[in-house]
Amino acid sequence: MQKPRLGHIQFLNCLPLYYGLVKNDVLLDVDLVKADPADLAVTLVDGGLDIAPIPAIEYARHADELVLLPDIAISSDGEVQSILLLSKTPTSELDGGVVALTNASRTSQALARILLAKRWGVAPAYVQMPSDLGSMLREADAALLIGDDALRAYWQRPPHLFSYDLGTVWNEWTGLPMVYAVWAVRREFAESDPDAVGRVSQALSESLDYCRLHLDDISEYAARWEAFPAEHFRSYFDALQFRFGPRYREGLTRYMEEAHSIGQLDSVPALRVFGEAE
Amino acid sequence: MQKPRLGHIQFLNCLPLYYGLVKNDVLLDVDLVKADPADLAVTLVDGGLDIAPIPAIEYARHADELVLLPDIAISSDGEVQSILLLSKTPTSELDGGVVALTNASRTSQALARILLAKRWGVAPAYVQMPSDLGSMLREADAALLIGDDALRAYWQRPPHLFSYDLGTVWNEWTGLPMVYAVWAVRREFAESDPDAVGRVSQALSESLDYCRLHLDDISEYAARWEAFPAEHFRSYFDALQFRFGPRYREGLTRYMEEAHSIGQLDSVPALRVFGEAE
Repeated sequence: MQKPRLGHIQFLNCLPLYYGLVKNDVLLDVDLVKADPADLAVTLVDGGLDIAPIPAIEYARHADELVLLPDIAISSDGEVQSILLLSKTPTSELDGGVVALTNASRTSQALARILLAKRWGVAPAYVQMPSDLGSMLREADAALLIGDDALRAYWQRPPHLFSYDLGTVWNEWTGLPMVYAVWAVRREFAESDPDAVGRVSQALSESLDYCRLHLDDISEYAARWEAFPAEHFRSYFDALQFRFGPRYREGLTRYMEEAHSIGQLDSVPALRVFGEAE
Repeated sequence: MQKPRLGHIQFLNCLPLYYGLVKNDVLLDVDLVKADPADLAVTLVDGGLDIAPIPAIEYARHADELVLLPDIAISSDGEVQSILLLSKTPTSELDGGVVALTNASRTSQALARILLAKRWGVAPAYVQMPSDLGSMLREADAALLIGDDALRAYWQRPPHLFSYDLGTVWNEWTGLPMVYAVWAVRREFAESDPDAVGRVSQALSESLDYCRLHLDDISEYAARWEAFPAEHFRSYFDALQFRFGPRYREGLTRYMEEAHSIGQLDSVPALRVFGEAE
């Protein structure tokens, strides 16, 4: 017998969940493996993990081999704060310009491409670069930042730049929430040990319930280890949802459809959710 | 600000401690990195970790760069169950024979060499091999197993073999406990952030206090994930001490002296302990 091998994203966005996992002693019942979301997706598909949070676009690419946990995702119904397009001009003027995309996230890259092409109707050239605002803006007219780098930019409000929160823009354009990452299970594991999947799913849900009740404590805790005040974290953790209800699933499907429409995705899979009829 | 990076050994011997760490929410205040003890030593000395459990012999080799936590070690005052010499003949007949040493632990390798040379007065040839009893005994007259492999052999009592618990043999020979691993701090980290070291040291001690009070629960928990009954684990966790008091430190120094006397260690360092005068 082996404990379920559960992936974990060690970014600020998953800190509230981690807090709940620790406080609920869940780490005794899973073998937690921390890595970047893109690496988690590769390891999961290769069979080195059983359940993991993976970028929405990686789910779309490997949906045949995966099923989704029903009650958890990294999502926002509007502002997300940690996916930011910072531009020297209004986005409407980026046609023919250059946009630097952080190479840290392909879900966000596709989201930026979707919004630039279809919401703002511009066709810039794209370059992928490491996440460093200064060097990105030396080479490009706008820069996509995500994660902790984006948060710092969001909180410091760099002057002379137009700042677009892509969670907000998506929500205003589609009327839907945006789903950035999902918790996926290897289909083979879900079929061979559904009880273990059910237990992990429940433990994650209970940890989320715990964390929603203790967001002030979690914000204080985050502020002890990072150079921003607790109010900033509280605001971020309020923006970030971990929800995956019907409207969120609709948002995910819409995202995949839009990514498909601009050639960033070969096909749009139906969502297969653990424990639900297909 | 960064959380202290704390190494952890993911073997059964450190499971009681892990249980205490989880139940006491310590994982919120450290960045826990799981690895083999030998890898932890390399990473610690290279600066990739701040505090880690490392094999006693690795401490001896790098003592100049390290200080020890005062209240924790992996140790036994007699039987240890998980360091076993399994021999086709009594050890007194191994002179000129071949002993296969698992390549998983250099502390135990040196312990076996010490006891064979000085306690039993025999001079076998040594071969290092992966930890597999069958193939070891095809090529050798005796085999040193450690860790989970040794425990399985201890519990299954393979017939037709003489079995020596090296914790017991050491204790009977020297009258002292044996220290297998110590918690070491990079000296540079101890000097630059003594408060953090103090907090981690205290958190580990409290986790040990917790685990000593809950050994039955921990044994039940271990048995859920391994193919042996809870009584076996309870017996093992009773044998294993996490103590590092005066007699234990005396045992460690004696071990280093003996390893030095048979050429397995270049020199015998004084023990430098965090928070104690040298």
